[in-house]
Amino acid sequence: MGKNRLEAFSDGVLAIIITIMVLELKAPEGTEWGEIKKLLPDLVSYMMSFLFIGVYWANHHHLLHLVKKVSAGIMLANLNLLFWLSLVPFATGWVGETHFDSLPVAIYAALLILNAVSYTILQETIAACHKQNPELAVIMKAQSRKGIVSSILYAVAIPLAFLEPYSSVVLFFLVTIMWLIPDKKIEKVTAGD
Amino acid sequence: MGKNRLEAFSDGVLAIIITIMVLELKAPEGTEWGEIKKLLPDLVSYMMSFLFIGVYWANHHHLLHLVKKVSAGIMLANLNLLFWLSLVPFATGWVGETHFDSLPVAIYAALLILNAVSYTILQETIAACHKQNPELAVIMKAQSRKGIVSSILYAVAIPLAFLEPYSSVVLFFLVTIMWLIPDKKIEKVTAGD
Amino acid sequence: MGKNRLEAFSDGVLAIIITIMVLELKAPEGTEWGEIKKLLPDLVSYMMSFLFIGVYWANHHHLLHLVKKVSAGIMLANLNLLFWLSLVPFATGWVGETHFDSLPVAIYAALLILNAVSYTILQETIAACHKQNPELAVIMKAQSRKGIVSSILYAVAIPLAFLEPYSSVVLFFLVTIMWLIPDKKIEKVTAGD
Amino acid sequence: MGKNRLEAFSDGVLAIIITIMVLELKAPEGTEWGEIKKLLPDLVSYMMSFLFIGVYWANHHHLLHLVKKVSAGIMLANLNLLFWLSLVPFATGWVGETHFDSLPVAIYAALLILNAVSYTILQETIAACHKQNPELAVIMKAQSRKGIVSSILYAVAIPLAFLEPYSSVVLFFLVTIMWLIPDKKIEKVTAGD
Repeated sequence: MGKNRLEAFSDGVLAIIITIMVLELKAPEGTEWGEIKKLLPDLVSYMMSFLFIGVYWANHHHLLHLVKKVSAGIMLANLNLLFWLSLVPFATGWVGETHFDSLPVAIYAALLILNAVSYTILQETIAACHKQNPELAVIMKAQSRKGIVSSILYAVAIPLAFLEPYSSVVLFFLVTIMWLIPDKKIEKVTAGD
Repeated sequence: MGKNRLEAFSDGVLAIIITIMVLELKAPEGTEWGEIKKLLPDLVSYMMSFLFIGVYWANHHHLLHLVKKVSAGIMLANLNLLFWLSLVPFATGWVGETHFDSLPVAIYAALLILNAVSYTILQETIAACHKQNPELAVIMKAQSRKGIVSSILYAVAIPLAFLEPYSSVVLFFLVTIMWLIPDKKIEKVTAGD
Repeated sequence: MGKNRLEAFSDGVLAIIITIMVLELKAPEGTEWGEIKKLLPDLVSYMMSFLFIGVYWANHHHLLHLVKKVSAGIMLANLNLLFWLSLVPFATGWVGETHFDSLPVAIYAALLILNAVSYTILQETIAACHKQNPELAVIMKAQSRKGIVSSILYAVAIPLAFLEPYSSVVLFFLVTIMWLIPDKKIEKVTAGD
Repeated sequence: MGKNRLEAFSDGVLAIIITIMVLELKAPEGTEWGEIKKLLPDLVSYMMSFLFIGVYWANHHHLLHLVKKVSAGIMLANLNLLFWLSLVPFATGWVGETHFDSLPVAIYAALLILNAVSYTILQETIAACHKQNPELAVIMKAQSRKGIVSSILYAVAIPLAFLEPYSSVVLFFLVTIMWLIPDKKIEKVTAGD
């Protein structure tokens, strides 16, 4: 019961975050091919963040699927995660408009780390009140391993942004692709959906 | 369970896509009839895209209605479809603001094809893990036949946009009207809703 | 099943319509009382439309509550209603920004009539496939009677807008207040919610 | 049944309110650290309102969790609460853009009081038709006590805004933190979620 509403509210917020980013793609006034070329950085940053939020939605979905009870702590940790995710549209717009300049890209990377940390806090809060749930443990272990790799790559992307910002962007995409590859272990546990 | 949340998230994203397009209809500063006339292209393109997204919502609804399990592949194919649908507000704004100029109309048509292809990918992904579901097969067959006709007409609309962009717009409306006519075969299968 | 998703999609669209109107209330740059006074027309038109959409949500809720099956016709009639409701934010912005000028107010009234007609079409479509449902008949009868009164008053508001636009605005509020007063007959039927 | 849709609509509106505030955070055109510094007041006011809406969502969640039937009065009181909450993004934008100037901060405080009053009206309306529900009484008592403290502090924040607006902002954060601390009594009652 309580869980349903937590999921519904999170789905609502995530659906809005993922969709309002498209408002940054302003319709050009001209009607030439050149206009589309000028929009390319905005399009790339939009796709990058769309995939990023999409992955978080899927992970959130798997994580909450096995949650049995929602404590005040879980609600708080979830709200904290939604807060940092809600800043992604801002960072996406900045990165796109400045054509992947160093500082915006570095701040984008830092924001992704803050999101990863918030997700870990949510995981730990859930784990603390679901101690005897082997299926949840499987999902968390699979997600944690990938989460550590992601955070390391995001951390590398911060200094890299000041040398080669496009390399940082490639890193962001690589991390997201890693998450998009279906995970056999999670698939097995959630097969009964 | 998992399906409910996939539907809820998709409904949220589709509801936002269909509604934020109205933000392109800026309230005019004047108070004369002429102001409404100037808004006409924006109104027409809004109505065109509203119906387009509405049809996708209805088809998505029928398709997922008979889905039994949600694999990682289905989630991915669904996310891919939502991505291309989320670009419709951008193309709608461009088409309206430029009063149906050739290039924007051609790109709009190309975007509709990309959406049709993404929908087909979603169908195939669902079909691959629901092999023995005769009702789903009926729905898919009815949708596929119409889908092919739609894609052909959208493809015709691309070169046509450089000769007679308004004819392409007429084609877009014709395709949508074809979808809006209730399909007897789908009605029969989903009668138990 | 099918009904749940129709309600969820409608709730999503209505929630977005009711909320994006607040984006018209631009934060003033100054910090004086005068700024708030200048916003007054926008605030009044926002409140007027917020209540209008709120009433539609409540009526839609009561109407669909007793619906048993969702046909393609009902989905179409519902989509049609959502289309006209989605134009309310545009009309609201125009009315507010022009400080309740004649033409915008008349068009606002015309839009409310189009919404009332669309709602009636939805009712009739639902009635056509729920012939033996006495509870639904009670709700529809109560809503239809008020609906006719509303449409007459909205029709009066159109010519009135060119003489005394503020009187039309008063009419809009009166109609909404009429709807906000709980209806004993509907209450009785839906008491088992 | 009826309750589900009331919750779904409220969740939708709250999710949109909490998320559209981020649209106020305009991506800066420059790429220097100074740009982020300039955004600081907007960021602080966004975080303040995000937490405020988040707390309301959680309280609304606990309150409605034990509601058994939804009367027309409850729907009205809920709509009234949503109206005042929907003005928070406007006040947030004003407070942020004017760097916490006196009048905007005072109006922000007044709006928070109006929200608290609307919440109390919703509580009383629910209490009036759920007279024999001891669990609901526990939740309401816990929320009411905190609600009175909040309103007093918000009332203090109004005159304070004309002397030391930043102190008012500190008060807003203190009130929110008070709500974020999990309440043992509510936790016990809702433990069975």
